[in-house]
Amino acid sequence: MSDPFSFELVATDPCGARMGKVHTAHGTVETPIFMPVGTQGTVKAMTPGELKGVGAQIVLANTYHLFLRPGHEIVGRLGGLHRFMNWDRPILTDSGGFQIFSLGALCKISEEGALFRSHIDGSKHFLSPENAVSVQETLGSDIMMQLDECPPADARLSQVESAMALSLRWAGRGKSARDPEKSNRALFGIMQGGIHEGLRRESAFGLVDLGFDGYAMGGLSVGESREAMLGVLSYAPHLLPLDKPRYLMGVGKPEDIVDAVACGVDMFDCVLPTRNARNGQLFTRQGPFNIKRAENREDAGPVDRRCGCETCRHYSRAYLRHLYVNREILGLRLMTLHNLFYYLDLAHAMKEAIGQGRFISFQKAFHRALAGEEAEY
Amino acid sequence: MSDPFSFELVATDPCGARMGKVHTAHGTVETPIFMPVGTQGTVKAMTPGELKGVGAQIVLANTYHLFLRPGHEIVGRLGGLHRFMNWDRPILTDSGGFQIFSLGALCKISEEGALFRSHIDGSKHFLSPENAVSVQETLGSDIMMQLDECPPADARLSQVESAMALSLRWAGRGKSARDPEKSNRALFGIMQGGIHEGLRRESAFGLVDLGFDGYAMGGLSVGESREAMLGVLSYAPHLLPLDKPRYLMGVGKPEDIVDAVACGVDMFDCVLPTRNARNGQLFTRQGPFNIKRAENREDAGPVDRRCGCETCRHYSRAYLRHLYVNREILGLRLMTLHNLFYYLDLAHAMKEAIGQGRFISFQKAFHRALAGEEAEY
Repeated sequence: MSDPFSFELVATDPCGARMGKVHTAHGTVETPIFMPVGTQGTVKAMTPGELKGVGAQIVLANTYHLFLRPGHEIVGRLGGLHRFMNWDRPILTDSGGFQIFSLGALCKISEEGALFRSHIDGSKHFLSPENAVSVQETLGSDIMMQLDECPPADARLSQVESAMALSLRWAGRGKSARDPEKSNRALFGIMQGGIHEGLRRESAFGLVDLGFDGYAMGGLSVGESREAMLGVLSYAPHLLPLDKPRYLMGVGKPEDIVDAVACGVDMFDCVLPTRNARNGQLFTRQGPFNIKRAENREDAGPVDRRCGCETCRHYSRAYLRHLYVNREILGLRLMTLHNLFYYLDLAHAMKEAIGQGRFISFQKAFHRALAGEEAEY
Repeated sequence: MSDPFSFELVATDPCGARMGKVHTAHGTVETPIFMPVGTQGTVKAMTPGELKGVGAQIVLANTYHLFLRPGHEIVGRLGGLHRFMNWDRPILTDSGGFQIFSLGALCKISEEGALFRSHIDGSKHFLSPENAVSVQETLGSDIMMQLDECPPADARLSQVESAMALSLRWAGRGKSARDPEKSNRALFGIMQGGIHEGLRRESAFGLVDLGFDGYAMGGLSVGESREAMLGVLSYAPHLLPLDKPRYLMGVGKPEDIVDAVACGVDMFDCVLPTRNARNGQLFTRQGPFNIKRAENREDAGPVDRRCGCETCRHYSRAYLRHLYVNREILGLRLMTLHNLFYYLDLAHAMKEAIGQGRFISFQKAFHRALAGEEAEY
């Protein structure tokens, strides 16, 4: 068996931002890190080689999708998800819960688990805290997530409270369900509690009491304001142990990630760089813009003169616009590549800044550049 | 100015198959060669680097599409098609005529040229034999095609005859319209005449009398039977000079290409490997098959055990089927890559066989393998 999962805290910036190393059976991830989302066993439009080329160290795969198609058992029989998708670096899988609640045609949550219908063919399925773990073990995930209930931002306090309490009970059941022979895999608990400090505190204490390999913050980026999210981030990470990785699920915009790192978060995932690329939106230090804009029609320059990605090195805005307008696959590829490079380059720059103890000035320069001011970071 | 265009006949197989070198301002193409089709300034789903990786030496671009979008003048102002699409090897452009006739909403052919409406926005345009050449010169094509009229397979003899005669007059006008400062580019004449030997003869003699850098055979693969096409190929290439390249337009299936090479054809283009890949059809020595077939669902093996392409080296049929069923872009990419590798590997194998004077046995083995028999080639 390969080395067990572990987290190594390498440096802490005066502001609380952390630099660390997540050691897994498929190699080490340097944090802070952004994880590209590979919903159906592929980060849309990218090869594993290209992902490595833009600096991806770990990808996220969605258990819900793979459970339905091709089925986790088929993936398992084919040698696991790493071999299936030809990716030899770490994989984090979600529990499937979030997609069940958002995509499932019918979804009944009980103490026992979640009964749902497939969004593909309407077939009925049941996911419990126990089989959410065993499905992820069958896929061969390096970092598994517990099944949790994630209420929307407009849920009543009583709903948020009961979802937090249920998630905590499910956390315990998920932990007990682990296959002891696969102990080199990690299982993360998920903190819930919405924007209510008391509930977040109760959730964190309960999870830490159970003891997990890492801790995720769920229930954010579900429709609340940026201010509300930053409010939670001002205290929530500090409820978690220093010696375990902290993962903010589904976040987010570059500015949200930078601000969350300042609050001591280590890991992030979001569909923004990939999904928005396919809608023509490209990220730059000066903020995002859409390639379709008429001013790009004859622009021989790259997306971002300071970017070192393959797209910016070899292709003009005019060509990318031409590809996008003509719905050419190559356009989706080149724009996805650029956006992922941007996100991973940002993660790398944050890590460097933390290592040098200058994250606060980094964060300020980042926001100034985004506001259109002259700023180097 | 770079070296002028030239053709070098390197070897001739006892059966008449030819091995040669086409020298252009953007490098040399070894024949027989298959040219991937890059309709809109991109071979669908592929980067230039991947095209080189599968052995592509030259690509075809469609003048009609680039004329309408983004416009040849924009491409010219951006430095030409090579720079626009980041492809530094040779480019052959068609004249635009074939697409006008097949895609244009309205198309009126007169002695002067072709009046047509854009299939995109209905706008009116006119293409003459003269501006067909100047549009291609503006794009920066290495090998330009004359404007011709290509009648369908079911056209009456009188239609085929008048189209051949008009194409011949347009050939002369196209040649006269060339920019003398761009003489390092090639212009090919196009033989017409359907399946009528007398008309093919008249067309060939007329074109050779005018004198072109190379000669294309048009009006085939337009709906006639395979036997009818092979009938024309039994004599048509021999109406053309030995010291110029011969290009069979729009052909075709692997078996058609192999048989045409035996008849002395040097160059081919076709959308089959790329378009069929996007429909899930994959080419192998044993013939094509569709990835969607249920038997591929759990097949851990590659598309073709004997294939050395990236797709076959790293991905299973089960994964490709999963990607295809889920309409994932990566599936279109990996299948396009395999099919282009197959076509270019076939071209390479034919070249080797001709160089060793064993093309007849190669051709036989190719057909035996295709029929499911044991055969090495």
